[in-house]
Amino acid sequence: MCRWAAWMGAPMFLEEVISRPEHSLIAQSQRAEETKTAINADGFGAAWYNHRPEPGLYRDVHPAWSDANLAALAHQVRSPLFLVHVRASTGSNISRENCHPFTHGRWSFMHNGQVGGFDCFRKQADMLIDDAHYNARRGATDSEAIFLHALGLGLDVDPLGAMARAVGDLQDLSERHGQGPHMRFSAAFSDGARLYAVRYASDARAPSLYYRYLSDAAGYMVVSEPLDDAVGDWQAVPSGTALIFDGSSMETAAFAPGALRQAA
Amino acid sequence: MCRWAAWMGAPMFLEEVISRPEHSLIAQSQRAEETKTAINADGFGAAWYNHRPEPGLYRDVHPAWSDANLAALAHQVRSPLFLVHVRASTGSNISRENCHPFTHGRWSFMHNGQVGGFDCFRKQADMLIDDAHYNARRGATDSEAIFLHALGLGLDVDPLGAMARAVGDLQDLSERHGQGPHMRFSAAFSDGARLYAVRYASDARAPSLYYRYLSDAAGYMVVSEPLDDAVGDWQAVPSGTALIFDGSSMETAAFAPGALRQAA
Amino acid sequence: MCRWAAWMGAPMFLEEVISRPEHSLIAQSQRAEETKTAINADGFGAAWYNHRPEPGLYRDVHPAWSDANLAALAHQVRSPLFLVHVRASTGSNISRENCHPFTHGRWSFMHNGQVGGFDCFRKQADMLIDDAHYNARRGATDSEAIFLHALGLGLDVDPLGAMARAVGDLQDLSERHGQGPHMRFSAAFSDGARLYAVRYASDARAPSLYYRYLSDAAGYMVVSEPLDDAVGDWQAVPSGTALIFDGSSMETAAFAPGALRQAA
Amino acid sequence: MCRWAAWMGAPMFLEEVISRPEHSLIAQSQRAEETKTAINADGFGAAWYNHRPEPGLYRDVHPAWSDANLAALAHQVRSPLFLVHVRASTGSNISRENCHPFTHGRWSFMHNGQVGGFDCFRKQADMLIDDAHYNARRGATDSEAIFLHALGLGLDVDPLGAMARAVGDLQDLSERHGQGPHMRFSAAFSDGARLYAVRYASDARAPSLYYRYLSDAAGYMVVSEPLDDAVGDWQAVPSGTALIFDGSSMETAAFAPGALRQAA
Repeated sequence: MCRWAAWMGAPMFLEEVISRPEHSLIAQSQRAEETKTAINADGFGAAWYNHRPEPGLYRDVHPAWSDANLAALAHQVRSPLFLVHVRASTGSNISRENCHPFTHGRWSFMHNGQVGGFDCFRKQADMLIDDAHYNARRGATDSEAIFLHALGLGLDVDPLGAMARAVGDLQDLSERHGQGPHMRFSAAFSDGARLYAVRYASDARAPSLYYRYLSDAAGYMVVSEPLDDAVGDWQAVPSGTALIFDGSSMETAAFAPGALRQAA
Repeated sequence: MCRWAAWMGAPMFLEEVISRPEHSLIAQSQRAEETKTAINADGFGAAWYNHRPEPGLYRDVHPAWSDANLAALAHQVRSPLFLVHVRASTGSNISRENCHPFTHGRWSFMHNGQVGGFDCFRKQADMLIDDAHYNARRGATDSEAIFLHALGLGLDVDPLGAMARAVGDLQDLSERHGQGPHMRFSAAFSDGARLYAVRYASDARAPSLYYRYLSDAAGYMVVSEPLDDAVGDWQAVPSGTALIFDGSSMETAAFAPGALRQAA
Repeated sequence: MCRWAAWMGAPMFLEEVISRPEHSLIAQSQRAEETKTAINADGFGAAWYNHRPEPGLYRDVHPAWSDANLAALAHQVRSPLFLVHVRASTGSNISRENCHPFTHGRWSFMHNGQVGGFDCFRKQADMLIDDAHYNARRGATDSEAIFLHALGLGLDVDPLGAMARAVGDLQDLSERHGQGPHMRFSAAFSDGARLYAVRYASDARAPSLYYRYLSDAAGYMVVSEPLDDAVGDWQAVPSGTALIFDGSSMETAAFAPGALRQAA
Repeated sequence: MCRWAAWMGAPMFLEEVISRPEHSLIAQSQRAEETKTAINADGFGAAWYNHRPEPGLYRDVHPAWSDANLAALAHQVRSPLFLVHVRASTGSNISRENCHPFTHGRWSFMHNGQVGGFDCFRKQADMLIDDAHYNARRGATDSEAIFLHALGLGLDVDPLGAMARAVGDLQDLSERHGQGPHMRFSAAFSDGARLYAVRYASDARAPSLYYRYLSDAAGYMVVSEPLDDAVGDWQAVPSGTALIFDGSSMETAAFAPGALRQAA
């Protein structure tokens, strides 16, 4: 499993999430608390929106705490919308191509969780990716496969619908060819205009997800686990829920791949 | 394009190919002479057979000349059969997974050349890889795809036949979906018992291939371009030819993917 | 030898120097024209000033052309003052600590050139670095030694004077313990308020230096070699000269370590 | 703090220490038990003796568990004498130059421990290194400084005496300029003919050290902490002790830098 955090609001230095808080993402890469893997040292990444429609992306395989370049970037780069991730591999190689976030055009995506038994059906999963997006497949993670499949299903047109169908299709492959738990999915994605966060699992153990509104920075922090001990300020997100952040407003919606698949 | 060299004979330090000769592989990574790309600095790799049935594999993305670990390995490791490669990317990312040689079980494989327009049909190429070998697909190169497809076609049983069919299938995809030149293929592969080298192209410009018998080391050096100026000692290999090295004997055979495909 | 470029003016994306021009820094890392080493692939670095008094610093050992992180950074980061460098090692290891620019507090520094026979007196050179700055010594380059020594000599108070004395001291060590050419020094440094560029050598062969005023971007580009073929627009800087850029004004001054040393 | 292991005996694959045991060095890099830092993920290294007088050296900054090259090397390389180390930084940068073991000529050296307040007197420590060995100073660790100083003091002629004097000199610098605890020193070093291990501290808390004789492999394993739970077989080494392994014999001697310094 992994840990991640996202921000949407007034421009903020990346380090306000990556390193400065008491239980920052770098701290979580060494001592995560709400997940089985305390150590998340198989790489890190940051995707940030600023002057361009497409996000910048910085990823590397070193543990987050030991990378001077990440520290410099985090200290210097300010952005109104960014996604940051520290990785604990669930099977695939340690390489930059397998680090989150993944980006494609304006979209960025990161994931905490797993598709059960993915190695048993990676070929079928790759084949779900449509021709237009196949060349963006650079690594071997289940996460990248979900993202690229969702792009092909119309992430541009119906973000939550496309993501739900993609998650549903991968869960279906796991049920037919893989092993349980079939789908654990706590993810964030953005097109630079809105930020989406989803918490879902095929069983009762969806990876944790919280959000918090920071009034002085007029924005929302969305995280795998709280960045500090101000417990009352962090809202836990129920499983089967999607959050849509648009400027300083937030909406919720149900997220139910199972239902979508039954309908199809 | 890339440069490579292979050895089969008495145990030899890897540096006798990697760094010591006048026009060693490291020299060729900076100043190759018989290829368009003089610089081959997009990574390197070495696969060597010694105490195990499966080969050791060391690959990294740094230019070969600047890696202290490679220098140490080359100075220390002796092997009777090894493959070494310096890479110039023909499109895919610079990452360890895209460096040659590739290995699987006892097999190792490296390639100089290109499958024309590969990005236009990478999906179909990946789909050629059979289920048993798909999980070994770690990168995005045409070379790795040829290798894994050949494994699925029975490289164990009929090495040259399987490789010819794999090359033919990829050439066919290029003719239908890609662009010319469709296939440039100068490759070496081994199962630890024999060393195979092939020179082939769909047109008249197969990447160069030479071999040389070293009597004092009782073995064969096979290379993209000669490691020194002892011109008379290096034999050029004609296009459409395969060499089979077995101990200190060498055989030649025709290598004709086109013919195989016509038969199929 | 190396290649570098610096900008001071209206905020500009780093890629306007790193990758977009016809003969960008990345192009120069593969095909430099005005230096002996055509290939400058032993690492790269960028230091940029923006929201903070101290600069951001991103350095890595990969060739500049193959680093996706650098490409993303260059595409996303805009800065009114930045220094960028691609390295060809003159002896010391390939490591991040030996890549330019070097930074300390508000200062950044990069160098093209060499102190002759540095390995013969590295110990004495290191000893020149004052106690307050010694812990900033992370690598083994002559360049970092010049920078840290200059800091100790009062770079804050008298930038050109301190740099001239530092260069003079290192040249002196080379004359006494090293070998010719004793000092080749084409450098740029900044405190975030002004940009300084110097061209100097102990002999007649100072590494090249040019500058150009871009009126539409209201600023100055300073480079090892021109970024494009607009020959008339690039002004060659004479040896023994320092340029001081302050906002959109430029002054010149003599740079003469020899004279300073005679006076001392 | 760090973890390390060394072997001297019949040729053994490096993986018998690096990865195969229940509590192998890679396991210790994630869950060390006898030290404050459970995670030792700031790099690793292996030095091995085989066909050459000087050892091979492979070091990198990735966590040991995630490096495919290390796994391959460990699986393929057999050696009768090797030193392996996983690092937890005590202050200096994460870089290859700061990873253990360090080598120079025939000598290799690795260290678990710390020189208290080293950053307060690194300059004086560097100045202890004699001219003949100064150019070997590539990093900024206290460990490399001890090693190079010991070389200058005659490690070739009197290994334990030179090492004791070097340790004493660094401890002295710490007492005068640094902070307690002044010296923690659990180290192994070799010239390829003998293997030395030392356990020492300026206070009562010397880092742990054990050894074990493997009769079937006719050799000695020396470790920071046992590689498995066969408790009775691992002998704890008292503080203030040096072990000298020569072929299959072992001697002990007192190790007392304090005494040497008083005598001087």
